[in-house]
Amino acid sequence: MTEATTAHPRRLIINAFLSGAASHLSPGQWRNPEDRGNTGFVDLAYWSDLARTVENAKFDAIFFADSLGVPDSVGGTPDYALRHASQTPNIDPLPVVAALIGQTSRLGFGLTASTTYERPFSLARRFTALDHLSGGRIGWNIVTSILDSAAKNFGLDKQIPHDERYDRGQDFLDATYKLWEGSWEDGALVRDVDSEMFVDPSKVHRINHEGKYFHVAGPLSSPPSDQRTPVLFQAGASPRGVRFAAENAEVVFTNGDTDGRVRTLVANTRAHAASAGRDPGSLKFVMPLAVITGSTDAEAREKYQYVRNYASETTAVAMLSGWTGHDWTHHDLDAPIVEVATDAQRSILPGLAGAHGEPPKTLREAARNIALGGRRGLVVGGPASTARELVGIANRTGVDGFNLFHITSPGTYKDFADHVIPVLQEQGHVWPDYPSGTLRERLMGTGSSRIAPDHRARRLAQSVVTSR
Amino acid sequence: MTEATTAHPRRLIINAFLSGAASHLSPGQWRNPEDRGNTGFVDLAYWSDLARTVENAKFDAIFFADSLGVPDSVGGTPDYALRHASQTPNIDPLPVVAALIGQTSRLGFGLTASTTYERPFSLARRFTALDHLSGGRIGWNIVTSILDSAAKNFGLDKQIPHDERYDRGQDFLDATYKLWEGSWEDGALVRDVDSEMFVDPSKVHRINHEGKYFHVAGPLSSPPSDQRTPVLFQAGASPRGVRFAAENAEVVFTNGDTDGRVRTLVANTRAHAASAGRDPGSLKFVMPLAVITGSTDAEAREKYQYVRNYASETTAVAMLSGWTGHDWTHHDLDAPIVEVATDAQRSILPGLAGAHGEPPKTLREAARNIALGGRRGLVVGGPASTARELVGIANRTGVDGFNLFHITSPGTYKDFADHVIPVLQEQGHVWPDYPSGTLRERLMGTGSSRIAPDHRARRLAQSVVTSR
Repeated sequence: MTEATTAHPRRLIINAFLSGAASHLSPGQWRNPEDRGNTGFVDLAYWSDLARTVENAKFDAIFFADSLGVPDSVGGTPDYALRHASQTPNIDPLPVVAALIGQTSRLGFGLTASTTYERPFSLARRFTALDHLSGGRIGWNIVTSILDSAAKNFGLDKQIPHDERYDRGQDFLDATYKLWEGSWEDGALVRDVDSEMFVDPSKVHRINHEGKYFHVAGPLSSPPSDQRTPVLFQAGASPRGVRFAAENAEVVFTNGDTDGRVRTLVANTRAHAASAGRDPGSLKFVMPLAVITGSTDAEAREKYQYVRNYASETTAVAMLSGWTGHDWTHHDLDAPIVEVATDAQRSILPGLAGAHGEPPKTLREAARNIALGGRRGLVVGGPASTARELVGIANRTGVDGFNLFHITSPGTYKDFADHVIPVLQEQGHVWPDYPSGTLRERLMGTGSSRIAPDHRARRLAQSVVTSR
Repeated sequence: MTEATTAHPRRLIINAFLSGAASHLSPGQWRNPEDRGNTGFVDLAYWSDLARTVENAKFDAIFFADSLGVPDSVGGTPDYALRHASQTPNIDPLPVVAALIGQTSRLGFGLTASTTYERPFSLARRFTALDHLSGGRIGWNIVTSILDSAAKNFGLDKQIPHDERYDRGQDFLDATYKLWEGSWEDGALVRDVDSEMFVDPSKVHRINHEGKYFHVAGPLSSPPSDQRTPVLFQAGASPRGVRFAAENAEVVFTNGDTDGRVRTLVANTRAHAASAGRDPGSLKFVMPLAVITGSTDAEAREKYQYVRNYASETTAVAMLSGWTGHDWTHHDLDAPIVEVATDAQRSILPGLAGAHGEPPKTLREAARNIALGGRRGLVVGGPASTARELVGIANRTGVDGFNLFHITSPGTYKDFADHVIPVLQEQGHVWPDYPSGTLRERLMGTGSSRIAPDHRARRLAQSVVTSR
């Protein structure tokens, strides 16, 4: 957590942070002729090219965000979000990940799936299939979903209340943990011709999960994959969310508008993990970040000026409205921010940090920041200064790496691969080639494909086996 | 429907009929060293090899069956099914299909998904993604699911009653039809930089589906794929099932132990389709069939004798128990069948036809038939006689083609590709190469990727657009 001055440089996790959308976190860039994502998001050729680009650069994983409805916080209709391509339209990233398994050989994949709208048995079985087919390269980003528009696509009038979503999510997870870790013992699939035994049934168990929200008998109908439980990603920031992440996540997405706030969130989550009986040092933290780079600082600044022309404040306001569930389009964009937003609203307002960390004075400034760099701000620089900044952020905040989102795709990733990766490799912050093993082995560096023995999943598994 | 004696040979649809299981419809063959499926079912390399084999032979599609639980009709536990690999273990075929999209370029995929355990919005979105990524090569095999063991994995004590499953299924379908056909008009995705309009919101509509079982607001968050609605496959045999198929299916799986029963089912389904306002001639029918072939009739017969050594009656009895929900292992296998089974039981007993159509006298004989050839029986012969038999079955029953299941995989498909396909190509019953177009255009031959205008899906779409 302190300055890295040792002989072992801090290893940085580097993920590409995408979604199945025409436009993810760079509102307005669909108008930029350099962006291929806004046409390619429905095409396998686009995704394959992108995946190979980041695999050639030895990224840890592509990480797919997702949402299950068109945001309708502006005016109560999907019109505004659709018109401005505010994280919509999009396609389901699960088939994208599955299709990319065969287009890559070592790259990991993190896939968002919702405990509020999926079902435990089918999710567990689907992730097991993905993990088998990929040879252990799959992670699950556990979300409880935040859009009212998604709730309306699943038979609800509005969302389940926040904390109850997490209670339900925990029950969901517990069922999947039992299916993945408890229903099949090692060595159950014997294929013994002499005794006419394909699976040894004494090593396969019903889970008989009877939670408050989910009842699942089991067993899982698939044999376990190398990782069994996929690598668990989660982004909890609320008090209940932090507790949920501390209890379940192996890799935590942290976000915050200042280094100090990120550092606090990391420390806070680790403390809760310790309370839950886990080794707090075993949790990894990654932070979203956008990087604009080139062969020199000057070239990077030129690129920044160029993409600024396409950044859309209008769309950023739509995104803000979707994230906060409040329609910001009715506010005066140029009035001082303290006049247009209540304290509570400002506390949930992302986009409070600009490219250089200064807080915005108006809603328009906040929107401008969201439009280029999101909540945390943007890194703009040549190879050496970008690498220095990334290592600096990691040292100051305690994060283990970055979810790099793009301004244009695949341009942002190609630039990062061409200019920054070689420097990070030379400095030993990222690997020159993938080490062997599953995604979990690579991320955790523990030499084991299995989730850690002190994780709740393993304890629940024990209860399944002993109660048979 | 009559003898094909015209200058235009009857085109035959040829699909490979698989599941994600270690063993699908050839119980016991996991003990046969020639079978690769029982080890390969979790490996992408196995699936890729298989997909390329059938694509090189210009098969229409790979068709994936599925089930959502380990059968437990024997003794109320999953033990027997697991031990004997009775259609279990298996993996979710959806990720398999998605992974194979990039390993193939023209082959179609039919994918089973359950209206009882999936949810309409996420299913519609997932199939839209698959159809986009594959360039319109996706079909959906609509099932309502039949295993009590599956129900117990989804919070139920036992299955929803048969006819109610279909009512629920229709409501599910209606919601997806509206999402696929009604929520996005053609040309909604405009990408117009000048007017800052990515999607024209006046052409995207909520569906506000409020059925008895499902409420879905919409719109679909994905733009429509080439086919919009995937090609709809369904296998309805009960009175309610036939009505459901007639109202919804574009391709109907028919099964029956005699040519006459298949012919009746085809005619009956067409009659119901006409009552539902559809062109009865627009429905296609395919029948499951197993073929053992070689370069000569004698070689085929030798292969039949060889695989007989591995066919497992014990496992067939387990499969029978799973399909019928009745534990047949307690019955005397060698007593005359009229003594061990009631009339009602016999009416649902598959496996009543042997290799040459003779009815079984005992349960053991029925099991032996199931173990090699399923309900319909097996075709054993060299290239010419097999081709003649396939065309003969099609002429006698009115089916348009076959879902070929395997005895060993990929061996059965390689044999068919090597020996039978060339003869069928020469005779003009199958194409020498894929015509251009989507799966629907190829199957229906109508020159349109869209579901037919007289289909319920299009009528419901109209109601969405006009009610906005």
